[in-house]
Amino acid sequence: MRCRRCRAAAVIEIRRNNAAYCKTCFVQVFREHVKRTIERHDMVAAGDRILVAVSGGKDSLALWDVLLDLGHDATGLYLGLGIGAYSGRSREVVQGFAAARGAALVEVDLERDYGFDIPTAGARGARSTCAVCGLSKRYVFNRAALEGGFDVVATGHNLDDEAATLLGNTLRWQTEYIARQAPVLPAKEGLVKKVKPLHRLSELETAAYAFLRGIDYVVEECPLVAGNTQLRYKEAMNAIEAGSPGTKAQFFLGYLERGMPLFATADDVDLRPCERCGQPTTGRFCAFCRARAQALGERIDALVEDGEVVGELADEVLPAEIYGRTG
Amino acid sequence: MRCRRCRAAAVIEIRRNNAAYCKTCFVQVFREHVKRTIERHDMVAAGDRILVAVSGGKDSLALWDVLLDLGHDATGLYLGLGIGAYSGRSREVVQGFAAARGAALVEVDLERDYGFDIPTAGARGARSTCAVCGLSKRYVFNRAALEGGFDVVATGHNLDDEAATLLGNTLRWQTEYIARQAPVLPAKEGLVKKVKPLHRLSELETAAYAFLRGIDYVVEECPLVAGNTQLRYKEAMNAIEAGSPGTKAQFFLGYLERGMPLFATADDVDLRPCERCGQPTTGRFCAFCRARAQALGERIDALVEDGEVVGELADEVLPAEIYGRTG
Repeated sequence: MRCRRCRAAAVIEIRRNNAAYCKTCFVQVFREHVKRTIERHDMVAAGDRILVAVSGGKDSLALWDVLLDLGHDATGLYLGLGIGAYSGRSREVVQGFAAARGAALVEVDLERDYGFDIPTAGARGARSTCAVCGLSKRYVFNRAALEGGFDVVATGHNLDDEAATLLGNTLRWQTEYIARQAPVLPAKEGLVKKVKPLHRLSELETAAYAFLRGIDYVVEECPLVAGNTQLRYKEAMNAIEAGSPGTKAQFFLGYLERGMPLFATADDVDLRPCERCGQPTTGRFCAFCRARAQALGERIDALVEDGEVVGELADEVLPAEIYGRTG
Repeated sequence: MRCRRCRAAAVIEIRRNNAAYCKTCFVQVFREHVKRTIERHDMVAAGDRILVAVSGGKDSLALWDVLLDLGHDATGLYLGLGIGAYSGRSREVVQGFAAARGAALVEVDLERDYGFDIPTAGARGARSTCAVCGLSKRYVFNRAALEGGFDVVATGHNLDDEAATLLGNTLRWQTEYIARQAPVLPAKEGLVKKVKPLHRLSELETAAYAFLRGIDYVVEECPLVAGNTQLRYKEAMNAIEAGSPGTKAQFFLGYLERGMPLFATADDVDLRPCERCGQPTTGRFCAFCRARAQALGERIDALVEDGEVVGELADEVLPAEIYGRTG
């Protein structure tokens, strides 16, 4: 096989494009694709300060790499989750990348800054480990961006991630989550703009990019993810894709084109500041503060000045042994 | 295990209900479920004449059986598809059931009445065999019901069928198909009311019912269905269901509750009579007449009196060798 652009020997075939590329051209095509995606969706304005959420995996490091190469003002954000050796290795990889590229890196650590880690929160809380991890990331990304004066948070979600998430949300018809799966979520009161510049690129493409660019990334899955429903949705999507190539892209991109407009009205919620931390939420306390209180064994209402009993929270999320006695 | 209702030895466990039943009680529970579904969705009014589409499989015969037992005026409709021994055996089974129950049976045969069979239409036409088969069934069911003066067409689609179809429609975001997956489609000009009284029952339940009632049904899959995308969607749903029991029901019933209302506006099409057969369609000729013309090697426009060239059809569905010369 020959490279579509320069006719040199190809190293990767992208079936979706019906094309093969040599290393140099693939890296360039990937970069141009991200550039076009950013432009087409108005993801970043001139002079914007971008905060890139980097886990140490291929997707987020590939994204940071491209953003820097495209000349953007892109600071990394690493969140320490406290998942033993896995988190240690992730941190090293991220720090190594930042040093090699001379890029700015912000570090937040759940244990140091908030007093709990993900394994504890998963074990003690009412939500699954992956759910607590997800909401903690969303919380910290937004808060760090607000406090650091960033204009936009960029994450490395790829097409496989988005298709699997959409499948999960659709299987449960979680219309408010479906409505929020846009590649750009504009800023709104207390919420920084969020963008996903890799949402049209497959996992294979981001892995190939990271590999061909010689980026050192964490290959292992998170050790807590085994049996995770998201993984099962990915497997189901892969099985369907194997029989009907192109289904994944058709599903997610078809959603953006024809599905999303129908769900837009479902995402009409009123936000107000969390009574504990001030971050935007729909209830009295945000999901992060509630999960944190569970992990720390605290009674969240004891920290609120008026001391009012918050019955609906007890019924909703907090387990009886932590929260029941106030009711 | 003991029967939930009578404490006799159970023969079947229904996990969804968290209950087990003996043969007599299961048959009764199944029948009551169908009765309640019919009532809740106003599927059948007093005195309605029902036409039940029966393929010879477990679902449609179980449905016919229950409708007769519930005292409905339910005539069977068998459509001969011309799929060799499979169609022969299906017809025998349906005729045997009708004779044993003393029930009225209408027979339509594609070859005898329309001059083609499904294998030929699949091989010659622009659509897949399963697509031609599906549209032919929908056409014949509606036309036979109209011409026979029936008030409602009932089909045996079960929860597994509906979930797999919804998955396929959603993966492609075919919003107009999604909108039409309701368990009741009301009558509209030229279209008879359609109902699916088994839409909340799993394949396992309908098979158990047919087995326990001693109904002789065709167990084999259609020989043309191998590699069918619907089968792959069923497999994907089964894989997800194995990891997260209840997903199938959650998906389809959640759609009915929260999804369907969002798609309702997408199903706003204007129908007019097909210029060839008079049945309702969105274009000049209905999909059945176009598929039939392909199977017979006819030029569909040659049959239209004004002789006008129908350019958009040539581009859309008909292959060039049949249709191109008129353009």
